[in-house]
Amino acid sequence: MSRKEQTITLAHGAGGGAMHALIDELFLTAFGDGPLLQKEDQARLPLADLLARGDRLALTTDSFVVSPLEFPGGDIGKLAVCGTLNDLAVGGAMPLYLSAAFIIEEGLPLVLLERLVGSMAEAAREAGVSIVTGDTKVVERGMADKLFINTTGVGVIPAGLSLSIGSARPGDQVLVNGHVGDHGAAVMLAREDLGLVGELASDCAGLHELIQPVLAQCSGVRCLRDATRGGLGGVLSEIAGASEVGIRLIERELPIRPQTLALCELLGLEPLFLANEGMTAMVICPEQAEQALALWRGHPLGRHARIIGEVLAPSSPGRLSLLTPYGGERLLEVPHGLQLPRIC
Amino acid sequence: MSRKEQTITLAHGAGGGAMHALIDELFLTAFGDGPLLQKEDQARLPLADLLARGDRLALTTDSFVVSPLEFPGGDIGKLAVCGTLNDLAVGGAMPLYLSAAFIIEEGLPLVLLERLVGSMAEAAREAGVSIVTGDTKVVERGMADKLFINTTGVGVIPAGLSLSIGSARPGDQVLVNGHVGDHGAAVMLAREDLGLVGELASDCAGLHELIQPVLAQCSGVRCLRDATRGGLGGVLSEIAGASEVGIRLIERELPIRPQTLALCELLGLEPLFLANEGMTAMVICPEQAEQALALWRGHPLGRHARIIGEVLAPSSPGRLSLLTPYGGERLLEVPHGLQLPRIC
Repeated sequence: MSRKEQTITLAHGAGGGAMHALIDELFLTAFGDGPLLQKEDQARLPLADLLARGDRLALTTDSFVVSPLEFPGGDIGKLAVCGTLNDLAVGGAMPLYLSAAFIIEEGLPLVLLERLVGSMAEAAREAGVSIVTGDTKVVERGMADKLFINTTGVGVIPAGLSLSIGSARPGDQVLVNGHVGDHGAAVMLAREDLGLVGELASDCAGLHELIQPVLAQCSGVRCLRDATRGGLGGVLSEIAGASEVGIRLIERELPIRPQTLALCELLGLEPLFLANEGMTAMVICPEQAEQALALWRGHPLGRHARIIGEVLAPSSPGRLSLLTPYGGERLLEVPHGLQLPRIC
Repeated sequence: MSRKEQTITLAHGAGGGAMHALIDELFLTAFGDGPLLQKEDQARLPLADLLARGDRLALTTDSFVVSPLEFPGGDIGKLAVCGTLNDLAVGGAMPLYLSAAFIIEEGLPLVLLERLVGSMAEAAREAGVSIVTGDTKVVERGMADKLFINTTGVGVIPAGLSLSIGSARPGDQVLVNGHVGDHGAAVMLAREDLGLVGELASDCAGLHELIQPVLAQCSGVRCLRDATRGGLGGVLSEIAGASEVGIRLIERELPIRPQTLALCELLGLEPLFLANEGMTAMVICPEQAEQALALWRGHPLGRHARIIGEVLAPSSPGRLSLLTPYGGERLLEVPHGLQLPRIC
């Protein structure tokens, strides 16, 4: 059988020779530096290296089940790296290490797995994080959907930094670094045959290099939250709830691409609840909002940054609303269920 | 609908109200202490607490896809805690924190999920580890097999301790703490209708309290490796390969239950390649083997501990063999593929 025709079999997850060959030839070749090459049951990381960067370990985990596996702007491999490192970055942590665990459906083409693992390795290299430990499981045909990836991230939070979704205060400004809903719209276009020629691509990107200079220079950042599942509306609603304040967005300030708006109108979706994978909301004290905005606009991932709203008095805790161009105010209610399944 | 009839829906993984209700009512109730309750995107753990225990962070990850979800002696929840903490313990690490990520198939009964999450919480409590961060994804019916769980473990390795699968030396003794193959045999009995009335139960257990006293008292421990996928034969073969030595086991010293032997004879399986989930191999210098054996036998998880073989000269690197009761020597070859899929 030619390499192009090879597929993953149950033997690749069984702990025997086939599994070790797959680990050696595919995973170690792609990710192999440092602890992973030792092939011990656990990576061993010097605590002194961590302590030199801060005083708290940050730990976060995400499983990725996106369908399709590849979409404009990214794939499940890139997403699995960026998604987890963003969950570290929004806590102010410097992302350092990742674990990577694969659940593979029997029959997955080997060349596809190689491509996705290669994309993952590239995203990790670009972000300066190391994949230090991993796991491979294979389940029978029909018992998973091609490939699921879990990544768990370890980072370090600098001493003195304390971001929390519970710390937004009335008068604070709300910023975003880019367009709303690109990831959700791109995945939807890749999945459904909507007869639309899409120029939309996922915004999938690692945000720590965008975030860290603002944290270093602006002491008035209250919190950051990447707007993934649940979208920008979802995370702002969480911040409003945890901080017991209201948040009001200004509709005409929201950076949304016309293609995304058109798609949402067609399907009856609200772009504020579409997922993003390279976009974060930031709440910051009013005095430093313009400075932060300027910093973001100077970074490639923040070119389209905007101040999109403000934090209101706690008279309406958890309330998220939208000021329309005509001066009206519309309440934004987080949907109970979903707009789109499996977008990350 | 009564609580007993409720099932997981796609809405429970969509980032909206249903997901937050599931997290609050099920996961936070079961696991909730400390960082998880903060509901930030990342757990924050003081580095000073880690540094007080050692000089290296240990990090390990495993996804669990066992079928069936419940079996005699355990379930996927208990397995997901014990399996990962054992991967820390065999490196000499004190297990401290776990992440927990769930991929749930739409339609999973809520009461079953509650039972499995409860089992996970109980295993973590017993082991003294905290579940500090998590994730929930739901995929459509038919796109996963009921439930997969990933856990990533963080521990700390005491200064001066350096175990490695590459450090076995000729003359070293090989010990195991319990019966060979119990987990694999129990899962097989739970899965197949073999017409056997099984008294077999999985050995699923956390081993750190068995391992740590031996490491504290015996400086001659070369390495430990829990004998999960690939079984005892698989891990000893890895040790022999990494250390470039041979390992010879004494068949009559192997602790194997008669029921396991009977099942293996019926199905043509080799018990040395059956999975275990509460059993570790240890390689130790000959002078301390009896002392370590006595320590293990004094612990409930080591009552059936035995010295089962020894490390041979490097003339046959990676060679694993079995001395039969009749004085012959049989070569043990790790199977390329699998004896049993999805045993962990």
